[in-house]
Amino acid sequence: MTTPDFDEIIDRRGTHSAKWDGMEAYYGVSPDDGLPMWVADMDFRPPACVTRALQDYIDHGVFGYFGDDAAYRASIGWWMQERHGWQIDTGAVFSTHGLVNGTGLCLQAFTEPGDGVVLFTPVYHAFARVIRAAGRKVVECPLALTEGRYEMDFAAYDAQMTGNEKLLILCSPHNPGGRVWSAEELRALADFAIRHDLVVVSDEIHSDLILPGARHVPMAVACPDISDRLVMMTATTKTFNLAGAHVGNVIIHDPDLRRRFETVMTANGISPNSFALHAATAAYSPEGAAWVEALCNYLDGNRKLFDEGINAIPGVTSMKLEGTYLAWVDFSGTGMEATEVQRRIEKDARIAVNYGESFGLGGETYQRFNLATPRARVAEAVERMQKAFADLQ
Amino acid sequence: MTTPDFDEIIDRRGTHSAKWDGMEAYYGVSPDDGLPMWVADMDFRPPACVTRALQDYIDHGVFGYFGDDAAYRASIGWWMQERHGWQIDTGAVFSTHGLVNGTGLCLQAFTEPGDGVVLFTPVYHAFARVIRAAGRKVVECPLALTEGRYEMDFAAYDAQMTGNEKLLILCSPHNPGGRVWSAEELRALADFAIRHDLVVVSDEIHSDLILPGARHVPMAVACPDISDRLVMMTATTKTFNLAGAHVGNVIIHDPDLRRRFETVMTANGISPNSFALHAATAAYSPEGAAWVEALCNYLDGNRKLFDEGINAIPGVTSMKLEGTYLAWVDFSGTGMEATEVQRRIEKDARIAVNYGESFGLGGETYQRFNLATPRARVAEAVERMQKAFADLQ
Ligand SMILES: Cc1ncc(COP(=O)(O)O)c(C=O)c1O
Ligand SMILES: Cc1ncc(COP(=O)(O)O)c(C=O)c1O
Repeated sequence: MTTPDFDEIIDRRGTHSAKWDGMEAYYGVSPDDGLPMWVADMDFRPPACVTRALQDYIDHGVFGYFGDDAAYRASIGWWMQERHGWQIDTGAVFSTHGLVNGTGLCLQAFTEPGDGVVLFTPVYHAFARVIRAAGRKVVECPLALTEGRYEMDFAAYDAQMTGNEKLLILCSPHNPGGRVWSAEELRALADFAIRHDLVVVSDEIHSDLILPGARHVPMAVACPDISDRLVMMTATTKTFNLAGAHVGNVIIHDPDLRRRFETVMTANGISPNSFALHAATAAYSPEGAAWVEALCNYLDGNRKLFDEGINAIPGVTSMKLEGTYLAWVDFSGTGMEATEVQRRIEKDARIAVNYGESFGLGGETYQRFNLATPRARVAEAVERMQKAFADLQ
Repeated sequence: MTTPDFDEIIDRRGTHSAKWDGMEAYYGVSPDDGLPMWVADMDFRPPACVTRALQDYIDHGVFGYFGDDAAYRASIGWWMQERHGWQIDTGAVFSTHGLVNGTGLCLQAFTEPGDGVVLFTPVYHAFARVIRAAGRKVVECPLALTEGRYEMDFAAYDAQMTGNEKLLILCSPHNPGGRVWSAEELRALADFAIRHDLVVVSDEIHSDLILPGARHVPMAVACPDISDRLVMMTATTKTFNLAGAHVGNVIIHDPDLRRRFETVMTANGISPNSFALHAATAAYSPEGAAWVEALCNYLDGNRKLFDEGINAIPGVTSMKLEGTYLAWVDFSGTGMEATEVQRRIEKDARIAVNYGESFGLGGETYQRFNLATPRARVAEAVERMQKAFADLQ
């Protein structure tokens, strides 16, 4: 593998990038002098093996219906075993139109309108959006903050349950905040699901983006005994920066759950797009794995640089990430309203971030910063933030 | 534009082509000496403008979330006006994960479980599959055969309606059989929909593939008065052979229907994949239009060659196509069982076709042959068919 050059500045303006080309409309921050640190994709190219596979496909040049996904199934089987010590039945994999789609399909397959769906908030904003659009009820179980990190408080959640809840969505690792849940925490969550008879959807889209020192355990490995209520979701799209390709894996070992999910796939006419599967098959490979290792080290460097600079601002605290590239910064110590914090970030620092309040209960004083960009940009962001909040020094 | 060379033989074996690489498993016909004439995609490259756009995207190399679809919306607006005399509100376009997905989303948005959904059979098999998986009821209204072509018989359909029907799916042009419905026929259908208070989903995926002599009229142009119950579906995927990209347009001018559809899009987490939108934007262009004209002429040549050869077999009749590249061949005059016809096609002629019975009532004695392949293959298919049925001469 050629060493990836994550420092390379690639101009994404005018390329139909949601993050770059959508920034001005959303935030009034121009991509010409602004820094987009919102949408969760990276400003990097994927590993060369992925680009090569796409190039071969373009060179072939006929883009008809995709068939024969045996190689893809084998590659995901290899990846889960090799990288996560998880042996999957490759026949149990559904390729969806991404994992927001996977979430929507799970709600249709395993819940009814009006049912409660448990989220541990603050959490990835699309979950609540999908749940509400599907006519289900969002049940927010707030994460507890213990020594600056999120933990789950099942005693409190037990008291919250009414019997109307049918499914929970776990974000593992957690976005935002970057918790990589331990085997013990996953065990406690599984027991909670058993107590309240909930289907567990474990969204592990960030599970390959683990920073040095942490170790991800797939829910299926931590708690094989809940296989009869477990839906696992993984993807190449965050790991290898292929979000535009819109593809995800929903892996269901239980035959009854699988049958129900399959019916919903058919009712929705979901089948994988060929560009995504060509890319994903190439990604789940030894070359892809080596690239991910280099990536995680680079992201860790970005994280350290960012945290050091941001935590130097009085009243501002960046949560220590164990996984993901999404810094979660608490401004509560500044005593400022969120609107004032956002005004300074956008107008003074000219940075586009995700508003903490959009992640649900507990996110109100936070802003989320995407660090998956060349280090020079992270340094620039830190400098601008220090200037924008210089009066606090 | 360089003149497209539709005669070029491109080897699709081993490229994850559903049509080629899935043929042996489905039919026991080897791609090495067999002719795949089933799955509805073409053995041609798309126009050079499409390949160029994809190449530029690969060269850029960052495949994050797609945003800013203004150019795509403009290109579809241009295409509909220029090619079909249909002025659309470009804000009324939803980009779905293809049109089978679009169909599934319509059922969720506009019907309830148990509702009847009207199909004019024989018709594209996926409709019934999606309807059944969604827990809705298929209501088959059989097409009448008048002088060898399909017509709709609304007097008969009126008698069939029970009041439980909520939506109809029109396939315009019709697959299979290739009818290009006239403005008068569309008017009669619109009146039928009004009489029975049905939402009309007009699947016009084949509307650019019109053979010389016929003229397609979009339902929205033929009957603007049913705009309050009309959903239009179009796509680049059949026209330009981009089925692998999985993208389609659902165009809804009525604000109430649009709101309901939008909620279902959100509940399903559907947003366009970037490869598809880069390709589709490039396709809906003057260069794309010139290519389509050349394509339709070529397909017409294939159709003539095929029909002449097939109709020379006693008892076998190929329906005269007005649109699409999908020949619809009636074997009833041979007096053979469908299984014997299929055995000869697969074992003797080594051709893979779609079984007529899968298209619903009225398809039992037919087999569907895909003619979108270099002419030499069509000639070869004719020769093999004549040999396989030589005892009828
Ligand atoms: C937890 C989580 N799930 C899903 C997604 C998005 O998945 P997709 O792009 O496959 O729809 C994200 C993106 O940020 C995410 O953080
Ligand atoms: C009438 C009709 N609609 C839809 C489709 C498929 O659409 P998509 O590939 O976008 O799901 C086909 C493919 O043959 C078709 O004939």
